[in-house]
Amino acid sequence: MPYVNIKVTREGVTESQKASLIEGVTNLLVEVLQKTPAATMVVIDEVDMENWGIGGLPVNEYRRRKANLDGDTKTTDQ
Amino acid sequence: MPYVNIKVTREGVTESQKASLIEGVTNLLVEVLQKTPAATMVVIDEVDMENWGIGGLPVNEYRRRKANLDGDTKTTDQ
Amino acid sequence: MPYVNIKVTREGVTESQKASLIEGVTNLLVEVLQKTPAATMVVIDEVDMENWGIGGLPVNEYRRRKANLDGDTKTTDQ
Amino acid sequence: MPYVNIKVTREGVTESQKASLIEGVTNLLVEVLQKTPAATMVVIDEVDMENWGIGGLPVNEYRRRKANLDGDTKTTDQ
Amino acid sequence: MPYVNIKVTREGVTESQKASLIEGVTNLLVEVLQKTPAATMVVIDEVDMENWGIGGLPVNEYRRRKANLDGDTKTTDQ
Amino acid sequence: MPYVNIKVTREGVTESQKASLIEGVTNLLVEVLQKTPAATMVVIDEVDMENWGIGGLPVNEYRRRKANLDGDTKTTDQ
Repeated sequence: MPYVNIKVTREGVTESQKASLIEGVTNLLVEVLQKTPAATMVVIDEVDMENWGIGGLPVNEYRRRKANLDGDTKTTDQ
Repeated sequence: MPYVNIKVTREGVTESQKASLIEGVTNLLVEVLQKTPAATMVVIDEVDMENWGIGGLPVNEYRRRKANLDGDTKTTDQ
Repeated sequence: MPYVNIKVTREGVTESQKASLIEGVTNLLVEVLQKTPAATMVVIDEVDMENWGIGGLPVNEYRRRKANLDGDTKTTDQ
Repeated sequence: MPYVNIKVTREGVTESQKASLIEGVTNLLVEVLQKTPAATMVVIDEVDMENWGIGGLPVNEYRRRKANLDGDTKTTDQ
Repeated sequence: MPYVNIKVTREGVTESQKASLIEGVTNLLVEVLQKTPAATMVVIDEVDMENWGIGGLPVNEYRRRKANLDGDTKTTDQ
Repeated sequence: MPYVNIKVTREGVTESQKASLIEGVTNLLVEVLQKTPAATMVVIDEVDMENWGIGGLPVNEYRRRKANLDGDTKTTDQ
């Protein structure tokens, strides 16, 4: 009876993508650990961009600097 | 000095119900473990329905299918 | 279908006390929010004393100083 | 840059199964949300059986009663 | 590669204060444990006042009673 | 009254380093948000290496491959 918590930045995750995450992670637990789907809970947390930090910076600022360093504007490290 | 986190689906939990959860779980920790109320923190997270999965499905879809299987439309497994 | 996480310091919580916490918090969710027991998960985390901080100090040191300030050795703020 | 926490009961999960969970959930986030693997963290928590509750009971006791009700000894609701 | 989760009451934390928390806690992990900033994630959760309990009460009510007891209206225990 | 959870890999973090993390993060919350130290909880989780994943791999394997790619054996991305 596993419990899975998935935290992602709030960037327009659709209802369909959420359903895919829930289905996928539940299937994974069935395959790897023979867990019962009905006893598997998944909670997705969408975190505002300014509330997520990486590299000592809010994630937007981190991506901006990383893109600059990489010499382009390709969004990196989603 | 316990910390308790209660996650429930966001389905109109009232301020009064939240106060009852906070009071009840704090009393429980006092009774069972002789914890000090002033050192007991409770955080309630209300999770959007589409962000909560059970049985490999978003909770709304899970309840709908379960109600069908049970031959009625009674909401089950709140 | 709630999920509850209870974190307490690791100080000899017995199996029977754990069962009481699980039963009590599940009953609370049934009473206050009419949740289904079979869909209610409880996870208890016992945290080593040196890994729990309060007032900027590890909990043992915090209790020692607080007892001194209170002019006695009664353990406070469990 | 997602963060995923997987909580399972401590029942002999092998190092290889853990690696499969880490790989599987990371791949899922790449496929569904185009996340970068290098920016995806997974933390697995193994929870002692007596610290996990379901249906108001420690999980071992819950499984025992459920097996009785089901008229057999097949372990259910892993 | 640490993961840090900071939960505070939702009381007008500014974007600049969030950036300071992210920078400060990342620097702390570099100084104390020589962690790599680029591998350090910070997630800030702002919790609605009515969802945070202390002393068996929602935090607003707790502060009000504590201020009364202290004989003044100074907000205490932020 | 904040709650902070710090998760790090279990790699010999000393009691003194834990005390420094507790003190540092509490001071940070006092400085940035004027929080009360006595109402600030910190919980440190040490996670076994095989239970921590990054880049789709257990952290040890991830570090080994990264060191190879970097052409040396310097441990990277602590």
